[in-house]
Amino acid sequence: MSDATFYATNPATGERLEPAFHEAGDADVNAAVAAATKVFDATLDLPPRWPADLLDAIADRILALGDALLERGEAETALPRARLTGERARTVGQIKMFAGIVREGSWVEAVIDTADADRKPMPKPDLRRMLRPRGPAAVFGASNFPFAFGTLGGDTASALAAGCPVVVKGHPSHPGTSQMFADAARDAIAALSLPPGLFALLQGTRHELSAALVKHSNITAVGFTGSLRAGRALFDLAAARPSPIPVFAEMGSINPLIILPGALAERKADIAQGLAASVLLGGGQFCTKPGVVFAVGEGGKSLVSRLQKVIGHTQPITMLNPSLRDNFMRRVHEWSRTDEVGAIDAPDEAVGAAGTWPALFETDAQIFQREPTLREEVFGPSTLVVHCNDRAELLACLDTIEGSLTGTVHVGEGDHEADVRVVLRKLEGKVGRVIVNGYPTGVEVCNAMVHGGPYPATTDPASTSVGSAAIRRFVRMTAYQDTPDALLPAALKNSNPLSIERTINGKRTRDPV
Amino acid sequence: MSDATFYATNPATGERLEPAFHEAGDADVNAAVAAATKVFDATLDLPPRWPADLLDAIADRILALGDALLERGEAETALPRARLTGERARTVGQIKMFAGIVREGSWVEAVIDTADADRKPMPKPDLRRMLRPRGPAAVFGASNFPFAFGTLGGDTASALAAGCPVVVKGHPSHPGTSQMFADAARDAIAALSLPPGLFALLQGTRHELSAALVKHSNITAVGFTGSLRAGRALFDLAAARPSPIPVFAEMGSINPLIILPGALAERKADIAQGLAASVLLGGGQFCTKPGVVFAVGEGGKSLVSRLQKVIGHTQPITMLNPSLRDNFMRRVHEWSRTDEVGAIDAPDEAVGAAGTWPALFETDAQIFQREPTLREEVFGPSTLVVHCNDRAELLACLDTIEGSLTGTVHVGEGDHEADVRVVLRKLEGKVGRVIVNGYPTGVEVCNAMVHGGPYPATTDPASTSVGSAAIRRFVRMTAYQDTPDALLPAALKNSNPLSIERTINGKRTRDPV
Repeated sequence: MSDATFYATNPATGERLEPAFHEAGDADVNAAVAAATKVFDATLDLPPRWPADLLDAIADRILALGDALLERGEAETALPRARLTGERARTVGQIKMFAGIVREGSWVEAVIDTADADRKPMPKPDLRRMLRPRGPAAVFGASNFPFAFGTLGGDTASALAAGCPVVVKGHPSHPGTSQMFADAARDAIAALSLPPGLFALLQGTRHELSAALVKHSNITAVGFTGSLRAGRALFDLAAARPSPIPVFAEMGSINPLIILPGALAERKADIAQGLAASVLLGGGQFCTKPGVVFAVGEGGKSLVSRLQKVIGHTQPITMLNPSLRDNFMRRVHEWSRTDEVGAIDAPDEAVGAAGTWPALFETDAQIFQREPTLREEVFGPSTLVVHCNDRAELLACLDTIEGSLTGTVHVGEGDHEADVRVVLRKLEGKVGRVIVNGYPTGVEVCNAMVHGGPYPATTDPASTSVGSAAIRRFVRMTAYQDTPDALLPAALKNSNPLSIERTINGKRTRDPV
Repeated sequence: MSDATFYATNPATGERLEPAFHEAGDADVNAAVAAATKVFDATLDLPPRWPADLLDAIADRILALGDALLERGEAETALPRARLTGERARTVGQIKMFAGIVREGSWVEAVIDTADADRKPMPKPDLRRMLRPRGPAAVFGASNFPFAFGTLGGDTASALAAGCPVVVKGHPSHPGTSQMFADAARDAIAALSLPPGLFALLQGTRHELSAALVKHSNITAVGFTGSLRAGRALFDLAAARPSPIPVFAEMGSINPLIILPGALAERKADIAQGLAASVLLGGGQFCTKPGVVFAVGEGGKSLVSRLQKVIGHTQPITMLNPSLRDNFMRRVHEWSRTDEVGAIDAPDEAVGAAGTWPALFETDAQIFQREPTLREEVFGPSTLVVHCNDRAELLACLDTIEGSLTGTVHVGEGDHEADVRVVLRKLEGKVGRVIVNGYPTGVEVCNAMVHGGPYPATTDPASTSVGSAAIRRFVRMTAYQDTPDALLPAALKNSNPLSIERTINGKRTRDPV
């Protein structure tokens, strides 16, 4: 085991934060995964709703961390207390949502087709299928939501809900926050006398740690939120394994926001306010930040003036860590140097340890289509307004963009429904979530949410990392043919002991077989 | 466009079958995918149940091919007429099953969470999600089920059902059969005045053709049934694309079949008969052929004697093509040379163009655990009996095997339920479908079927290539936030114009919003 350690840094002040954290090495990975593997076999003998009890207990213990969690979170991320308080509520809320889903139980999609001994030419066997946990899962915490996408964020909650033991690789930007969450999980597991191997936190700054975890032969699935480069690297490692596993990576996204001529004419001031707020929310460090704005028709120029007023009056923004800030500045300078991209407001100097100013750019549809760099995410407080003369220019621009988490259209009374339909149709092919007359930041945790989208927004457009459907990433399907009732999992037994909704011979019901 | 052509060979006689088929090249791939891409956009404006009409029309036209299809199929595969007649019924049946699923409509998993303007601290938006087709799909036909897993097999049917245009790469063993299916599809599309680009067949013998199809940037998903080597090659190509896509490959499988001591004592003769029939079905060329039999306790030796009687009296078997036969012979000779693996019956010479004899081997638990080659699929008419002294030896053997499509346990009155449970638990972690007191060949097409399993059985243990859930491979998820009713897809509109079952605020219902 290595003796190496690392520290968190306060991004607002640049000061080193105590204590030191152990840099996990291969031995730690092997120990955590071995424990998770052993525990996985054991959990299959537990009452099927054990994850509900565990998740509820974890939620309670997160709240019990009290202000200490908020303080440490603020020190490590420079995110304001109010934001972290809200994020804590969301984190606890989504853990409890998954607990509720597990307790209700129907999420396993139990499907039963009963036998027919008289069928010709062959008798029909009894077949029953359900979703089962894949096995030990690896989760990579994100820096930008240290609670909701962190150590006990949505990935961990949905993997545990599915019944998978979880090994988390904490984000090195906030190791103290991660450790507090890990302590909460450990206490909850102990209080319920569940096996400790159900959850482990590995901390470290080295890529080798992430690689070792993803390559471990007993890891069966990976949840990740972060940069395209890091997500793709993990995806590639997982695909190249002797036995490949899925990496559900939620990565970069430009989140196109379209303002149609009617909306621009009717609601320019409102949209400028709402858009600026969405761009600046959380320091522009949301995966759903609207990074490219297509203003169609007259009025785009005065929208930019209004945006500039809001964005130009913003105070410097402290980003989550110096490395993100440096990347942001590099990208902003790259754009500033691009011919014919107007830098309306763009920082030329960094501020303090991880500070910067917001940036605003404008260009036209031709330049946008010509310069690939304009179609790549800039992570941080900036947006680019693309002036489109008409709908044809807009559609040509949309043809050139890649997948995003979200796509937004602002529609006014003056916009014809048929025109809007064409735009929406084009947009929905590129994104996981379409929004009309709203803003993409703010991701509702509910049954109908899709926080996903075509590559490079994610590595799997059939999945979501937010909302109840997130649980499906951590399951596989198993069928049982002619299996005696006593040997079937509870969800598939004739008497329906869990009282769940099942599909029996094509009909949804809670009745027994 | 290349002028190269190729011919089918009759595996029974070795004779070349007319006519010549064009070897598709890059230009053909590009043309087919371009047409599919253009059509995909257009289909989104069609009434949402168009795939149901198309699938029904295709099924009718397959039947209308009449005896000509059976004759060509027999000439190209050497599969007997009765088998092909049954397979045609299954093929038509599964196409009609998918038509029914599309016509009923609830498969899109419409989920609606309505708005709550009064929610604190933030109003709750209206969110609706559903499954949408991914886009153009590529399907690779298999050789061993020229109808049911062929050009219009389950992969094509489920992809079309999802709403994806399909480009099929036909298996080069039976190009005439593939062409007849393609003609049926083309006629059905024309009769319904649907766009021709919905379906294309590419034929060829070169790996480069498969690679070009999988690497085409507009292909969004791949269905494949075939060998581990070929499936993994396509998977690797797809994962390495700039924009990776899923390859749902159903590949090799040893399909362990366990006979517990009670079953062995009570039903030895029956099991020997049933097992031999399952091993020899379709010339041993089923993906679910029981390739390894674990006989636990006394009685294994006399099971082998009984198996030998059935297998030793079998006539030579003509395999699907000379290359499969040569591979089979190579693997059989490899096993025969392994120390302490007893070759009870094993062919030493090939017969005719693609003929061979069935093979039977036996060994013990120690050798099985020691020799990795014994845990790899042998595609063809053979099986290996592994003698296990007790349950501990059986469990140790099971620990060493990789994923399979199926796992079977034969249980007798004399076997204790607790012991059976331990075996079943171990087995279900390794396979997609557990069977008790039956045989794995014969894959029922129904809602509860899982024809899948952990790698290397497939590349995605969360999916199935048979049964209604197969449609899920070809979809992605899209959410709509605060989108006016007029702009929503029909499945998500307030009035529920398709009368489908939806989940509204957590409740399943066919009611409007």
